[in-house]
Amino acid sequence: MRMVDLIEKKRDGGVLSEEEIAFFVQGVTDNSIPDYQISAFLMAILFRGMNTEETAILTDKMEHSGQTIDLSSIHGATVDKHSTGGVGDKTSLALGPLVAACGAKLAKMSGKGLGHTGGTLDKLESIPGYQIQRSIEQFIHQVNDIGLSIIGQTAEVDPADKKLYALRDVTGTVESIPLIASSIMSKKLAAGAQTILLDVKYGAGAFMKDLSSARELAKVMVNIGKHLHKDTRAILTGMEEPLGFAVGNALEVKEAIDELKGHGPKDFHELIIRAGGIMLLQAKIVSSEEEGERKIQEAIDNGSGLRKLIEMVEAQGGDASYIENPCKFPISKRIIEVHAEESGYVHHIDSLAIGLTAMRLGAGRATMNDVIDHSAGILLAKKVGDKVEKGELLFTMYTNKDEIGSAVEDALKAYQIHEEKIVAPSIIADYLF
Amino acid sequence: MRMVDLIEKKRDGGVLSEEEIAFFVQGVTDNSIPDYQISAFLMAILFRGMNTEETAILTDKMEHSGQTIDLSSIHGATVDKHSTGGVGDKTSLALGPLVAACGAKLAKMSGKGLGHTGGTLDKLESIPGYQIQRSIEQFIHQVNDIGLSIIGQTAEVDPADKKLYALRDVTGTVESIPLIASSIMSKKLAAGAQTILLDVKYGAGAFMKDLSSARELAKVMVNIGKHLHKDTRAILTGMEEPLGFAVGNALEVKEAIDELKGHGPKDFHELIIRAGGIMLLQAKIVSSEEEGERKIQEAIDNGSGLRKLIEMVEAQGGDASYIENPCKFPISKRIIEVHAEESGYVHHIDSLAIGLTAMRLGAGRATMNDVIDHSAGILLAKKVGDKVEKGELLFTMYTNKDEIGSAVEDALKAYQIHEEKIVAPSIIADYLF
Repeated sequence: MRMVDLIEKKRDGGVLSEEEIAFFVQGVTDNSIPDYQISAFLMAILFRGMNTEETAILTDKMEHSGQTIDLSSIHGATVDKHSTGGVGDKTSLALGPLVAACGAKLAKMSGKGLGHTGGTLDKLESIPGYQIQRSIEQFIHQVNDIGLSIIGQTAEVDPADKKLYALRDVTGTVESIPLIASSIMSKKLAAGAQTILLDVKYGAGAFMKDLSSARELAKVMVNIGKHLHKDTRAILTGMEEPLGFAVGNALEVKEAIDELKGHGPKDFHELIIRAGGIMLLQAKIVSSEEEGERKIQEAIDNGSGLRKLIEMVEAQGGDASYIENPCKFPISKRIIEVHAEESGYVHHIDSLAIGLTAMRLGAGRATMNDVIDHSAGILLAKKVGDKVEKGELLFTMYTNKDEIGSAVEDALKAYQIHEEKIVAPSIIADYLF
Repeated sequence: MRMVDLIEKKRDGGVLSEEEIAFFVQGVTDNSIPDYQISAFLMAILFRGMNTEETAILTDKMEHSGQTIDLSSIHGATVDKHSTGGVGDKTSLALGPLVAACGAKLAKMSGKGLGHTGGTLDKLESIPGYQIQRSIEQFIHQVNDIGLSIIGQTAEVDPADKKLYALRDVTGTVESIPLIASSIMSKKLAAGAQTILLDVKYGAGAFMKDLSSARELAKVMVNIGKHLHKDTRAILTGMEEPLGFAVGNALEVKEAIDELKGHGPKDFHELIIRAGGIMLLQAKIVSSEEEGERKIQEAIDNGSGLRKLIEMVEAQGGDASYIENPCKFPISKRIIEVHAEESGYVHHIDSLAIGLTAMRLGAGRATMNDVIDHSAGILLAKKVGDKVEKGELLFTMYTNKDEIGSAVEDALKAYQIHEEKIVAPSIIADYLF
């Protein structure tokens, strides 16, 4: 088999066979196919697409390109969730402990953030001592013990995806739905969970810019799951404003703790309850989503979710006193309060602008070598639908940098304030399974 | 400027600026753009195309990516021709001497053949002693002296094309009209001719498989010429059967000599007369194509064309006695005569099958490291339109190989013989300028 023939076949709109896709993934993994052929092939896929079967096969081959994690020694139903990444997305930090408190097993491998959407690991590393590198044995042991562990991806998982992702990033081939879908799903499947809930975000601050492309991506991933016999579901959630109030690592951990204490932001709470209900149904702990939602709410109300977070932090070497007393998290040396320049109702908060500004304040990485300032970020005071008076606090910026350029103006411009009253839409636009 | 942004711009259907194209060609030439970005970009161009201006700018930047040959010290009008490559295409071997005999100056840089279409240089190297490597000074001196030189391309000409061509070949990005057009035209322009006649071939054995895509390529190249103020014209010639009777290096040299002696095959002669007429008009030696055609015929009839070929061979160190006495060309040790298995009229001779078979007999290269057997090839006895009786000679195969597999059957299958009478169409389907 020659790679150039596969490129030409896809270029001309052909459908690749299982054998051909296996050849490609093998060649990517063992470096026998040169990068220039891989990138031409990726561009041909971007233009021609892949059908459901091709995408499922690609996912399956990528999943098996390296080590796969065997979670079968975990007692009970393992669940997993994945977010395509949004601004202020601290969902796993609250949702993981809650579903674990309700009896599901969450053995989650997560990634570091790059760009304006932070990574769950970076947020967890705000907690002094928290270890993200664990052996698979430690990982499984902890999940059996307390129902929950969130760690970094081991280097051996899905090497084909690592290679492809790095190439796609520099060759204009990121925006291909089958490539995005297979990348996400192969990693999740290699990580071994029995069920997967996908949180596909859309809007300015998200990877998918509109609802229809997000829905297409979600459909493709749910179909991959069907093809590979994994219970895979997806919710579509809006990123027309950042999730919750907090954007930035320690700020977001504190907001997740707020949620576990029963006073999280409205949109964040809605997402937690809905996603938790679905995950408990996937785990077969409940027989309906509504029953699952009630159980999640109970785990908030009775504090069992918060206790589960404390247990996880302790089990992974973190200082749990920060969870019990969030005031211990260090505050940045500069705190800039920004006030509204006009009165009206908040119609839109550009998540991308907020995310990029937070990154500039120190909360994110522009390149993988950048060091994150866990205390940096932005805390919104007003959300979409809120009434605001001129001079009222709109948001607060936290940074240790002396020079932040036009950060204040840029974040201020992210707010669209108009006279007309507006009601914020539900954060969950759709649910596919 | 970042290459990934250029890739994304073209991927999304954008039009590239002169600055962007210059950045690309510079980066290709100095190796600052990695191959994987180049190949993704080429694939995006394949899908999105380039407009006339982009293609002309790309051509211009490629032309100037290395040394350009300054032919201004040649006295008189320099002409050049280029064929996109066909089976049995020995046109330059007869046409060059004829236009030179009529007073035009042909300073031609040619290439070696790869695949089933032979290169002019390989054919010339059938002549013992013929030197294809000459310095630019020798080249110009010879053209001033006798009006004609055909040499190999110097390494320094159009390095961007060399790099791009090698990558396109292995990344499924050969079949892009703007890329084909800019590759051909940049080399021709860098080689310095004042006028260019393009012979764009179409059909099974040609690069362009049908007349309409050949016409599109021709149009794009003529437009590049207009944009860059070079008199550029194109003829579209059919490759529905090999050109002439001879396919294979020494066999083709002998057929070119036949043509110069006034008894070349009908289709080959038609092409020579028509192309020669156009080139003499381009050189402003005549004031109409018809006048040019008459002069070319005269140069055949009075033997001045043949004498010009002898002069060129002598000037480049070759043994001209082979031209005077073509029987001196060595004959292969195996000669296989193949006879018709049915009676009728020849409707079609699959050039690709004939070309590939000739290559297998030793006449061509599968890879650039293969050594050509100059005596190998196929000599057709019947052409399209010819009546053939069962048992009559159809073609003769020449080879020094002991093992030729299914070569006889494959070449035989190339012939389509049907009962109905058929008249061979004119070899020239269109003329664009």
